[in-house]
Amino acid sequence: MAAAIEYFFDFSSPYGYLASHRIDDIAAKHGREVVWRPFLLGKVFEFNGQRPLTSQPLKGEYAIHDFARIARLYDIPWTMPEKFPIATQAAGRVFYWLNESDPGQAKTFAKLAYNTYFADGITIQAKDVVAGIAGKAGADEAAALAVIDEDRVKLLLLDASDEAIERNVCGSPFFFVDGEPFWGADRIEMIDQWLSTGGW
Amino acid sequence: MAAAIEYFFDFSSPYGYLASHRIDDIAAKHGREVVWRPFLLGKVFEFNGQRPLTSQPLKGEYAIHDFARIARLYDIPWTMPEKFPIATQAAGRVFYWLNESDPGQAKTFAKLAYNTYFADGITIQAKDVVAGIAGKAGADEAAALAVIDEDRVKLLLLDASDEAIERNVCGSPFFFVDGEPFWGADRIEMIDQWLSTGGW
Repeated sequence: MAAAIEYFFDFSSPYGYLASHRIDDIAAKHGREVVWRPFLLGKVFEFNGQRPLTSQPLKGEYAIHDFARIARLYDIPWTMPEKFPIATQAAGRVFYWLNESDPGQAKTFAKLAYNTYFADGITIQAKDVVAGIAGKAGADEAAALAVIDEDRVKLLLLDASDEAIERNVCGSPFFFVDGEPFWGADRIEMIDQWLSTGGW
Repeated sequence: MAAAIEYFFDFSSPYGYLASHRIDDIAAKHGREVVWRPFLLGKVFEFNGQRPLTSQPLKGEYAIHDFARIARLYDIPWTMPEKFPIATQAAGRVFYWLNESDPGQAKTFAKLAYNTYFADGITIQAKDVVAGIAGKAGADEAAALAVIDEDRVKLLLLDASDEAIERNVCGSPFFFVDGEPFWGADRIEMIDQWLSTGGW
């Protein structure tokens, strides 16, 4: 079987959310799996000396317009959350904890978390909210709450974020297809074309 | 006739160059003209507190890889110039001077200037080089050299750059299609789709 597509994303990334609704279907068309890899985009921004798109004067207005436009185009539920951006440590840690025993459940959790934030507009920063989402994904809610403060689990997310920087992941979403890097929700068509043609 | 597409670009922008090889054809498919509007991206960066893509640690390597990948996909001649980025005041001023009497000649000049820089890899910062390109576009080379230092012509480019900031042009290339903003060479497919469907 061909190698899985790696999908790096931050739970606070609107373009990451928009990609979450599309990447598995595009991959499946080509017989590919997708490995979901949440990371802390803030660590990349710190390294790069960047700020979030929406807090840059000219880019912010465009980005907010563009999020909604992409959502309409692909019929993806969309709300620009009032509280934005948010810290996503809790969500990332619960994801990697679930992922150790059941990657499918981790992905279900990630989709629920993303939809809670960007479809329902409910912030997913607080530990109890994140644990509640883990509960909805079929995990033990109390256990999920506990792992958020576990050093071992903290390191899983930190290592993923360090790996992202090492591999030049410069934004969210960011994909690797057979080693080829693609940055942005608006590159999913190009990924589709790359998979169809074998690259160019 | 439907309104022209506005195409804002900086002569030092690789993505702007890549778009220059495609936007007129896409527009023509839909019976549209394209108004070319060079501006000084540095003024937007200054306003936004940004640096060029290629001088940002993680983005630089990705961007350089991506420029070449887009060029290969659309069969556009491509060289990453050794001297990059460059000041584009001279090119922008000559463009607006030509544009006053002959927009077609201004566009020919712009294409020659872009190709000189990004296809041949020859820097287009110096006044005499820019005047030479104007000569190749059929203009009076000595007159082109002189206008680069004319206050009236300087203001044409400055006004275009101020207008870009006022209209939230946050990068290069940036397009307006019936008032709808599109940022990036990788949004040309979306512009095509927008024009085909009437928007969404």
